[in-house]
Amino acid sequence: MPAESIVGDTSQFLHFDEGPDTFSMTLPTRGSLHFPAEHRSFLEPHLPPSDLSPADGSSFPFTTITYASSLDSQLALSPGAPTQLSGPQSKAMTHYLRSRHDAILIGVGTAIADNPSLNCRIEGVGGYGVKGLEGQPRPIVVDPAGRWDFTAGHKIFQLARSGQGRAPYIITSSKAPAADKTAILREAGGKFITVDAQTTGANGQKLDWKDILKALSAEGLRSVMIEGGGAVINSLLQPEYFPVISSMIVTIAPTWLGVGGVVVSPPRRFEHEGKPMAAVRLEHVKWHPFGDDVVLCGKVKV
Amino acid sequence: MPAESIVGDTSQFLHFDEGPDTFSMTLPTRGSLHFPAEHRSFLEPHLPPSDLSPADGSSFPFTTITYASSLDSQLALSPGAPTQLSGPQSKAMTHYLRSRHDAILIGVGTAIADNPSLNCRIEGVGGYGVKGLEGQPRPIVVDPAGRWDFTAGHKIFQLARSGQGRAPYIITSSKAPAADKTAILREAGGKFITVDAQTTGANGQKLDWKDILKALSAEGLRSVMIEGGGAVINSLLQPEYFPVISSMIVTIAPTWLGVGGVVVSPPRRFEHEGKPMAAVRLEHVKWHPFGDDVVLCGKVKV
Repeated sequence: MPAESIVGDTSQFLHFDEGPDTFSMTLPTRGSLHFPAEHRSFLEPHLPPSDLSPADGSSFPFTTITYASSLDSQLALSPGAPTQLSGPQSKAMTHYLRSRHDAILIGVGTAIADNPSLNCRIEGVGGYGVKGLEGQPRPIVVDPAGRWDFTAGHKIFQLARSGQGRAPYIITSSKAPAADKTAILREAGGKFITVDAQTTGANGQKLDWKDILKALSAEGLRSVMIEGGGAVINSLLQPEYFPVISSMIVTIAPTWLGVGGVVVSPPRRFEHEGKPMAAVRLEHVKWHPFGDDVVLCGKVKV
Repeated sequence: MPAESIVGDTSQFLHFDEGPDTFSMTLPTRGSLHFPAEHRSFLEPHLPPSDLSPADGSSFPFTTITYASSLDSQLALSPGAPTQLSGPQSKAMTHYLRSRHDAILIGVGTAIADNPSLNCRIEGVGGYGVKGLEGQPRPIVVDPAGRWDFTAGHKIFQLARSGQGRAPYIITSSKAPAADKTAILREAGGKFITVDAQTTGANGQKLDWKDILKALSAEGLRSVMIEGGGAVINSLLQPEYFPVISSMIVTIAPTWLGVGGVVVSPPRRFEHEGKPMAAVRLEHVKWHPFGDDVVLCGKVKV
């Protein structure tokens, strides 16, 4: 797949995907993005250190949660709706962040709604100015019940074939995923990873984020950037997972989407006496104005 | 009422009211707040100019909307719940902003939930270091149906009696407000202002913000700062009122309150083809990191 067709695709900005991109036209490699060095320094303390130990499943990866929202904490007007929220520099930042993580993770809802590319287009990573896949993160799709009905024609597989991204690993609770899907994944260099479901009460089965993150570590992935959607982020922003969240990077656009969109707001928490309390607080907070948006970096207070 | 008793009161921060305030202890006038000059300059372009023409009801006041929210766009965990969200410098900023407006406005829900003081405690305004009421804004409570069951013992009347604030004007749709309430208001120097209700369909009667703002102008009030709560802000952030909103000043704290609180999110808007669109966009945007919070200033794009 030539780079031109990426420039021309019509998917959306907000889900960190490729929109029509006049910005890229002036850059050395068509379809690639440039994230200036002067903006990198404020992110550095919030990114995986370059000397992370090899991962072997015995600990958790460096886990970054990142998303872009409106002032009313919405990711999109509706699931899969193209919602241009943050500016072009925010898009370049997202691709830079991808280049700094071994893996990028989304939930199955986002995969179904967006047909995402989930690669990195920063100038200088593999497939964008240089050969190989150096700097291309491994896409991870969390799909416990096998809902994602992908084909070899989906963008993520096209990019894997053209050497501009890696094939996905799909987290499933199934011990025997569908053979046709397994074949598509295998051919592209991806696979299913089975994680045991936790049996819960009324909700039936669910996966535990700690098991998912351990499974990524067992694959040698030292760091993962979790990009959404809303259900994924809200489920992670709960006290049992605070210790495994290494970093939060949130872009806020000066726009209210209005009631009815995809909201980031974690489940309510209560004090011992039953009074509601703030769900999540950040510490080591830095705000970085960035075009019309602001980027918030911090660490979840455990 | 001596200033000491204000310092000791236990109402909350978030609704811009007086919490226990160690910060004020070192200041010249007990109970007063200091907002340093170095923080004033970024606000200046977003405040009413000092040379506003006298108001006579023929135009709208300079109207500023301001509030402090969590990252998930909530003002409080529940209506009237003490929710310390923003830092102490944000509180001082709010009181500085109050000193720069002729009036400050809240909805009846906030008046009932909070028993608010609605005065200005910046060092140097009337009642805080100097005599008179110079710099004390006129409190406005929008209470179309006469729900606010106040007495002369409510904080706002105590402060009016002690020379540390003005008595409220209450916006009502009633042509004949209750005589006992009228007496309390008159004694303190306040009054009811009757604004004709608009008859609407299913919802019965409601007041139009333009009529309310015109009524304030007719009282000689050249500027008004609208502080909340959620229902007031959401109802103002609709296209018909965009032209009368002069300025937005929003403080965001690095905290998610979690689902179930008082949310700022305007009604959904749709394009002509029925597709949802962003409800409100800002222009002339400035972000000002401020302690652990950020202050966003901008103008609603009409």
